[in-house]
Amino acid sequence: MKAEIIAVGTELLLGQISNTNGQFLARMLADIGIDTYYQTVVGDNPQRLTEVLDLATKRSDLIITIGGLGPTEDDLTKQTVAKYLNTTLVADQKALDHLQDFYTQTKRPLTPNNRIQAYYVKDATVLNNSNGLAVGALLTANKATYVLLPGPPSEFKPMVLNELRPRLVAMTHHDEVLVSRVLRFYGIGESLLATKLNDLIVNQTNPTLATYAKDYEVTLRLTAKAKDNETADQLLDDLEQRVQALVGAHFYGYGDENNLEKVVVNQLIAKKLHVSAAESLTGGLFQSMIAEVPGASSVFDGGFVTYALDQKAKMLNIDAAQLHKDGVVSEATAAAMALHSRAQTNAEIGLGFTGVAGPDELEGQPAGTVYIGLAYKDEPVVVKLWHFPRKRNDIRTNAAMAGFFMLFKKLQQKD
Amino acid sequence: MKAEIIAVGTELLLGQISNTNGQFLARMLADIGIDTYYQTVVGDNPQRLTEVLDLATKRSDLIITIGGLGPTEDDLTKQTVAKYLNTTLVADQKALDHLQDFYTQTKRPLTPNNRIQAYYVKDATVLNNSNGLAVGALLTANKATYVLLPGPPSEFKPMVLNELRPRLVAMTHHDEVLVSRVLRFYGIGESLLATKLNDLIVNQTNPTLATYAKDYEVTLRLTAKAKDNETADQLLDDLEQRVQALVGAHFYGYGDENNLEKVVVNQLIAKKLHVSAAESLTGGLFQSMIAEVPGASSVFDGGFVTYALDQKAKMLNIDAAQLHKDGVVSEATAAAMALHSRAQTNAEIGLGFTGVAGPDELEGQPAGTVYIGLAYKDEPVVVKLWHFPRKRNDIRTNAAMAGFFMLFKKLQQKD
Repeated sequence: MKAEIIAVGTELLLGQISNTNGQFLARMLADIGIDTYYQTVVGDNPQRLTEVLDLATKRSDLIITIGGLGPTEDDLTKQTVAKYLNTTLVADQKALDHLQDFYTQTKRPLTPNNRIQAYYVKDATVLNNSNGLAVGALLTANKATYVLLPGPPSEFKPMVLNELRPRLVAMTHHDEVLVSRVLRFYGIGESLLATKLNDLIVNQTNPTLATYAKDYEVTLRLTAKAKDNETADQLLDDLEQRVQALVGAHFYGYGDENNLEKVVVNQLIAKKLHVSAAESLTGGLFQSMIAEVPGASSVFDGGFVTYALDQKAKMLNIDAAQLHKDGVVSEATAAAMALHSRAQTNAEIGLGFTGVAGPDELEGQPAGTVYIGLAYKDEPVVVKLWHFPRKRNDIRTNAAMAGFFMLFKKLQQKD
Repeated sequence: MKAEIIAVGTELLLGQISNTNGQFLARMLADIGIDTYYQTVVGDNPQRLTEVLDLATKRSDLIITIGGLGPTEDDLTKQTVAKYLNTTLVADQKALDHLQDFYTQTKRPLTPNNRIQAYYVKDATVLNNSNGLAVGALLTANKATYVLLPGPPSEFKPMVLNELRPRLVAMTHHDEVLVSRVLRFYGIGESLLATKLNDLIVNQTNPTLATYAKDYEVTLRLTAKAKDNETADQLLDDLEQRVQALVGAHFYGYGDENNLEKVVVNQLIAKKLHVSAAESLTGGLFQSMIAEVPGASSVFDGGFVTYALDQKAKMLNIDAAQLHKDGVVSEATAAAMALHSRAQTNAEIGLGFTGVAGPDELEGQPAGTVYIGLAYKDEPVVVKLWHFPRKRNDIRTNAAMAGFFMLFKKLQQKD
C-alpha cells in the first residue's frame, strides 16, 4: 500500500505553523509498515487541492488529507473531496447531536456554518472526533482509500491513534510484525559510519538499516519484518552483532528518545557514584546537561565554572603559579581541574574541561583545541586532547559530549 | 513569482524528523512577498524526485529543494537536478579547499564520497555554506529558477538568510527596497502580544507586521516597502514607536540572530561590569549561556553550581544552619546565593537561582516555583519569585532566561 499525505492550509504555506501533523502521521504509517511516498502541502484553494487529489489518486493507494474540516469559509477539504469523487456530503446524526449539545452547554448560538462539521462524504466510515466537533472520514473510491482528518493537533492525534490506526492495520491484514531497534553512536560522523557499514547497507534486505545524523551523534535504525516478535528480535540481534563488531567502539545506547547524558547519569545512579566538574571553556554546560536528567540530584552535588585563571586557582585551591607555568590550555591544567573538583566536593569522579572555544586562538593554540581530564577515585587522572571543528558553540557542546563519552567508557570498564 | 518547496529525504517521509526547514523557508518567502503554492516531501529516490521536479517546473517559477546534498549514498538531489536539466556537476575550488582544511584540522580521513559536497550544478551561482561542507546552488533554466539547499538546519538557515534571501530580493524587487526590522520580546506570550497590537495588525498595509512565537520569547517583524532605505526606515520608525508604546515593557532587542543573553553580555561589556552566579536548579545553564556569547570572558570570571545544600554552604561560604532554617526554595536562600557568588568572585553582580525543577515537588512547593536573586554592587539584593509551567527542562531554561531579563532591566536602569 502506497500512502500519500496532503496537508491543507494557507497558514502552512506561509510558514505560520509547522506541519507537525504530517510527521506524526508519517511515523504512525511507517510503524505499521505502510510506505509513504509523498507529502504535499497545499493552500485553502479548491482548484489546487483538486489537482493535488487527482495526482495523488494516480500515484497512491491511500490518500490522507489533514485540515480544512472546520467551520470557517476557507475550510473546504470535504466539499472538494466530495466534488472530486462526484458525490455529496451527508450529516452524521451523532455528531450533529454532539454539536448541538456543545453549543447548548457553552450557551453559544449554533450558527449554520458550524453544522458543516458534522457532515461527511457519503458512503464513508465516520471517524469520531473525541476532542472536537469536526468528524473525520474514511472511504474507498477509484480503487483508492481516502481519509479526511482534522487539522488541530489535539483533535488530529487521538483520531489517528484511536480511529484510523486500527482500521488501517485491519485493512493491510498482514500476518507479520514490524520491529525497529535504534542504536546510538558518538564520535563518528554519519559518512564514516556508513562507510564502515557499507557491506551491510548495500546488501540489506530484512532487516533493513538506515543511518541518521543528529546533532553531535549518529543513530542507526534496524527494522525487521517477521511472523512474530521473537523472530524479529532474533533477526535484529544477528544484525546488531555484525554492526557492533564494526562500529561498537562508538556505540553507547538504544532508543529514539535516549541521549548520552541520560545513559551516563543512569550508569552513575546504578553504581552509586557522584560526579563533579570544573569547567572553563564549557562554562557550565556539562553540569547543566547532567542536571537535565531526572534523578541527577542523587549523583551530582555541584561543581565549578572556572572561566578565568585566578578563579581556577581560588575556587579549586590549585597553586596559581603552577597554573601560570602550565598554561590554561594544557594537559596538566585539565588534570588539576579534574582532581581538585573531585576533592573539593568529595565526589568519586571529577572532570576538568579547558581549551579554546574561539573565535580567537589562545596561548598559540587554535580554536577547537580542548583538554578533558577525568579523575576516577584514586586512579591516575586520564587526560585526552581533542580537536573539534572551529565553531564556538559547537566546540563547547562537542567538549561536553566528549566528557560524557569519556565517562561512559570509564564506567563501562567498571561493569 | 510562484514558489514551490521540495524537501527531499526518506527520514522526513518516515516521520523521523520534522520538516522545520520547510516552515522556515516558507516564512522567509512570505516575508519578501513571494507566494508559495505547494510544498512537497519526497524520499531519496531519483525517479520520484525527477517526477516532482517536472511537475514543479510546469506549475511554478521558483523551485527550491531542501536536503540531499550530503556525502552519503542516498544524497542524490544535485545529481538528480543536473540530470533533469541535462547538465553536469562541477567542483567549487573554494569549497574543495574548505573541505580539505576541515578534514586536516579534525585529523580525520577525507573519504572520496565527501568530496561530492563541494560540487554544484554547472552554470549555477554557488551558495556558500558558512556552517558546513555542502555548497548550495541557484540557477535559471527552463524559464524557472532552481535553488538547492542543504538539509541540516544549522547549515540551511544561514544559507537561506545570508545567501538566498538577498538574491531573491534583488530578483523580485527591482525599483523598490524591502526593509525588515525584527523586535524581540521576553515575558509575553504570542497571543497576548497580538491582542495588545490588535489595531495595528488588523489595519496593517505598509509596513506589515507579523508575530512569531519562539522558544521562551516572541518576535515581531515589521516590513516596509519604499523607494529607498531612508523612506523605509522612517516608516519603520513610526510603526515601532506605536508598538513600543503598547508593549515596550517586554522589549529587549532587535534582530533575527539576536538573543537575550547576547544583549545582556553586551550591556555588561559596555558598562565594564562582571557577573557571577550560584545555580541550583539551573545546574550551570545560566553561566553556560553567558559563555556562549563571544567576548564573555571580559565580563565573566566564573561561578558555582551548587546543586546540593551542603555545597551551597561550602562553596559559597554561607552558614549551613541558616540555609537549613530558610529552606532551599526560599527568598532568603536566593538572596544569599546572589550575594555570596558576587563576593566570592569579586564581581559587581551576582545571581542566585534556586527552586523546583521537578518532576516532584520540593519542600512542599510545586515544580516551577523558582526564586532568582540579583545582587548589584552594594544595592539591596532583589529577589523575584517565578511560577513557570511544570516541565523539567522548560523550567530550567525559563529560569535562566528570567535571570537574564532581570539583569537586562537592572542594567537598563543604569543607562
